[in-house]
Amino acid sequence: MPRYRLTLEYDGRPYVGWQRQENGYSVQEALERAAFGLTGRATPTVAAGRTDSGVHATGQVCHLDIERDFAPDRLRAALNAYLKDESVVVLQAARAGEDFNARFSATGRAYLYRILNRRAQPTLDKGRVWWHPRTLDADAMHEAARVLLGTHDFSSFRATECQAASPVKTLDRLDVVRVGDEVQMIVEARSFLHHQVRNFAGSLALVGCGKWSAGDLQQALEARDRRLGGPTAPPDGLYLTRVEYPPA
Amino acid sequence: MPRYRLTLEYDGRPYVGWQRQENGYSVQEALERAAFGLTGRATPTVAAGRTDSGVHATGQVCHLDIERDFAPDRLRAALNAYLKDESVVVLQAARAGEDFNARFSATGRAYLYRILNRRAQPTLDKGRVWWHPRTLDADAMHEAARVLLGTHDFSSFRATECQAASPVKTLDRLDVVRVGDEVQMIVEARSFLHHQVRNFAGSLALVGCGKWSAGDLQQALEARDRRLGGPTAPPDGLYLTRVEYPPA
Repeated sequence: MPRYRLTLEYDGRPYVGWQRQENGYSVQEALERAAFGLTGRATPTVAAGRTDSGVHATGQVCHLDIERDFAPDRLRAALNAYLKDESVVVLQAARAGEDFNARFSATGRAYLYRILNRRAQPTLDKGRVWWHPRTLDADAMHEAARVLLGTHDFSSFRATECQAASPVKTLDRLDVVRVGDEVQMIVEARSFLHHQVRNFAGSLALVGCGKWSAGDLQQALEARDRRLGGPTAPPDGLYLTRVEYPPA
Repeated sequence: MPRYRLTLEYDGRPYVGWQRQENGYSVQEALERAAFGLTGRATPTVAAGRTDSGVHATGQVCHLDIERDFAPDRLRAALNAYLKDESVVVLQAARAGEDFNARFSATGRAYLYRILNRRAQPTLDKGRVWWHPRTLDADAMHEAARVLLGTHDFSSFRATECQAASPVKTLDRLDVVRVGDEVQMIVEARSFLHHQVRNFAGSLALVGCGKWSAGDLQQALEARDRRLGGPTAPPDGLYLTRVEYPPA
């Protein structure tokens, strides 16, 4: 049966997260309903990143199998027609090999975390940024974040309900830049622990407003204890922006 | 009575436009309710641009008179506290001279018009961009727009209900640039006719997708007849970004 790879954009606000759940409407369910509308068959999907409730995506990737042979652009258009009242769209569709798995074939994931750093609350970006009225020093955050790069036991930044087999991950990039009123974090790794990016954001915000030094961040990392990591920043500012795969 | 100048940001979607109206809730009413909450008195406001329903602002300016002497930052914080359930905020407050008038002292206004130019409908930017799935040539739009610069009778781009005394305006800037999936128009003039920027956007989109040549745009301008101008683009993509005043 032909396998397809889809690149998705979604506004996370109306959904309980990527994953199908008993107690709410998920991005996965919205997409699978669209696929059912198109094919008349139950069509399971597998995504690269199981984003939480309220987390957005501009480059989530999933795969699904459809009996019919679709030209990729027609598949995209047909699914988007079924998705017209949703906050999910297919940006791109492509044929994939039968051994392609959106989750297990991924070799890298990139996230953006947006902090609106000004006195006035957000209007146009409500629900799409973390509002942090106290002034943040983005350069200090960037400098401090150097200690997080590389391979570490990230237990201090791992949600207690995280199901990963090991707390050891390799962080490839964590850049903090100011863009006007916003402080943006760009984070890349092969894979992440649950809440890892939001826990980085919460901890680095403590550095940015002077409550933590770079040394405090390092101590938090070395403690390997979630109780000594910083607070979890809200989902509003988080975007899954890209998933990497080996060249086909 | 002390006069204050406020710089405002708002999401235009929940409002019938800037101006108070019998048949709906306006940005002006939201702001005047906040000012009433703070002062206990009816506090009329005057804005630089009377944005239409659904039009956004990142730099609207208005003035109002308040009996009490406020430190500008405290006035901003107090109004924003009253505005916390609205989609309007005060970005900046400043004392102004008693002859300052947000509308009549303005010497320039700048607008941004955002077009999402891709096949998939918007999700995160729904209501905040004009979705135009057919590919646009931003360079051709920019080139064609040169004929609009300078002083012209803009009757072809003027809403029939426009109340301006004259259809002659001087256009100082109209740049069209592509930014990823977006085509953005940046437009500046001392003042504008009703719907002028949205009519420019609708007409330039015809150029961008090859339905109009640059010569067609010039003919439309020279016809001085609204029936020969292009369609009015939706309010979703329009932002009042800046108002200029003479140095105090």
